[in-house]
Amino acid sequence: MSRPERIGAARALEALAAEGVRGWSAQDDRDALKKTFRFRDFSAAFAWMTEIALVAERLDHHPEWFNVYDRVEVTLTTHDAQGVSERDVALALSMERAALGRLVRT
Amino acid sequence: MSRPERIGAARALEALAAEGVRGWSAQDDRDALKKTFRFRDFSAAFAWMTEIALVAERLDHHPEWFNVYDRVEVTLTTHDAQGVSERDVALALSMERAALGRLVRT
Amino acid sequence: MSRPERIGAARALEALAAEGVRGWSAQDDRDALKKTFRFRDFSAAFAWMTEIALVAERLDHHPEWFNVYDRVEVTLTTHDAQGVSERDVALALSMERAALGRLVRT
Amino acid sequence: MSRPERIGAARALEALAAEGVRGWSAQDDRDALKKTFRFRDFSAAFAWMTEIALVAERLDHHPEWFNVYDRVEVTLTTHDAQGVSERDVALALSMERAALGRLVRT
Repeated sequence: MSRPERIGAARALEALAAEGVRGWSAQDDRDALKKTFRFRDFSAAFAWMTEIALVAERLDHHPEWFNVYDRVEVTLTTHDAQGVSERDVALALSMERAALGRLVRT
Repeated sequence: MSRPERIGAARALEALAAEGVRGWSAQDDRDALKKTFRFRDFSAAFAWMTEIALVAERLDHHPEWFNVYDRVEVTLTTHDAQGVSERDVALALSMERAALGRLVRT
Repeated sequence: MSRPERIGAARALEALAAEGVRGWSAQDDRDALKKTFRFRDFSAAFAWMTEIALVAERLDHHPEWFNVYDRVEVTLTTHDAQGVSERDVALALSMERAALGRLVRT
Repeated sequence: MSRPERIGAARALEALAAEGVRGWSAQDDRDALKKTFRFRDFSAAFAWMTEIALVAERLDHHPEWFNVYDRVEVTLTTHDAQGVSERDVALALSMERAALGRLVRT
C-alpha cells in the first residue's frame, strides 16, 4: 500500500457528516478523530469491538480504544500520515455500520 | 446451580414459537435444537459468535457450533439433562436477540 | 491476489511435517486438511479462535471449524483452488503458532 | 453475590507479589491497580482481550482497558467497593494466566 496522505480532522469530519454520520469530533491536542460509543451491555460492546478488530486487520489500520463495561471511546489517527487520513474515515464508517441498531441512545 | 430438567425439543420449540422466534428445529438423531444463521460476512458472523460466547460463559452453558465464512450452524442440548432443557431455550433466545438486525434473509 | 494453485493434501501434509507440525491429516471425502485442537477450557479455545479469525481476515482465507466447549475441529481447503493450496498450509501454520503452549495434550 | 470488601491497592499488590506476579502498581489518583501488557502483535493482544472478556463475564467483574495495536493498559478497581477488592486480585491473576507465553518482554 502507498503511504497515506494526511487530510486532517476537519476534512475528515466533513466527509463523515456528508455520509450522515454523527458524534465524531476532532481531538484537541493532536490531529485525530474521536467518538464515544455506548452499547446495551459489555457483551454487546465487546462483540462490536471484535467486528471492528477483524475489519482493522483487513485494512491494516487499527484504532486506539478504551473500554469500560458498555462504553468504548475511540481515537482514530494515522501514524504514517502524522495525522488523520482517508483510512480513518474508512475505519470510522466501518464502526458506524457495525454499530447500526446496536447503540444505546444517550 | 441445580441440575437442569429435560423438557425435550418439542416443548422447547413451542416455547420459542411463543416468543415469535423462527427457524429452529429438532435434530433427528438426538434430543437437540438446531438452527443455521447467516450473516453479512465473516466479521459479522464472528462478532455475533463473540457476543454469544460471552453469554455462554455467563450462563455456563455452551453451544455446539460450526462456522464457515458467513454461516453458523448451531446445535443446542444440555449434557447434564441428557437432552433439551430450559437452558437451551434461554441460550436460543440470547442468540436471537444478538442476531437482531444482523442476519441476511435467505 | 492471483488464483491459488491446488497442491493437494498430501503435499500440504509434507510441508507441515517439514515444519515439525503434528496432528494434521487428509480428509477422506474431499481434498482438505483436518485437525482437532483441545484447549484448557472454553475461554482458551475461543480466544484462540479469535486470534485465528483475525489472521483469516488478513489472509482473506477462512477455515471451516466446529467448536464444542474446549475442542475445535478444523477443516482447511481452498474453494478457488477446488482443493488444498498453499493458503491452507499458511493458515495451518498460523493456527499452530497461536496454539503454542495453549493446548491440552491428549 | 455479597458486596465486595475493599482491601486497597497495597494489600492487593502484596497478594499478587506472593503469587510471583510482576508489573502491577497502584494508580496515583484513585484506589486502583494498573499494568501494561505487550503482545507480539494486534491479533495476539486482541485474542488475549477476548479470553479476559470471557472471564470477566463469568466473574461479573470487568476491567477498564485501553488498547492500541500490540499494547493493552489495564486498570482494575471495584465500583461497589469504591476501591480495590479481592475481585481485582482474581481478575489480575486470570490476566496473568491467560498472558503466559504470550507477552513480549520489554
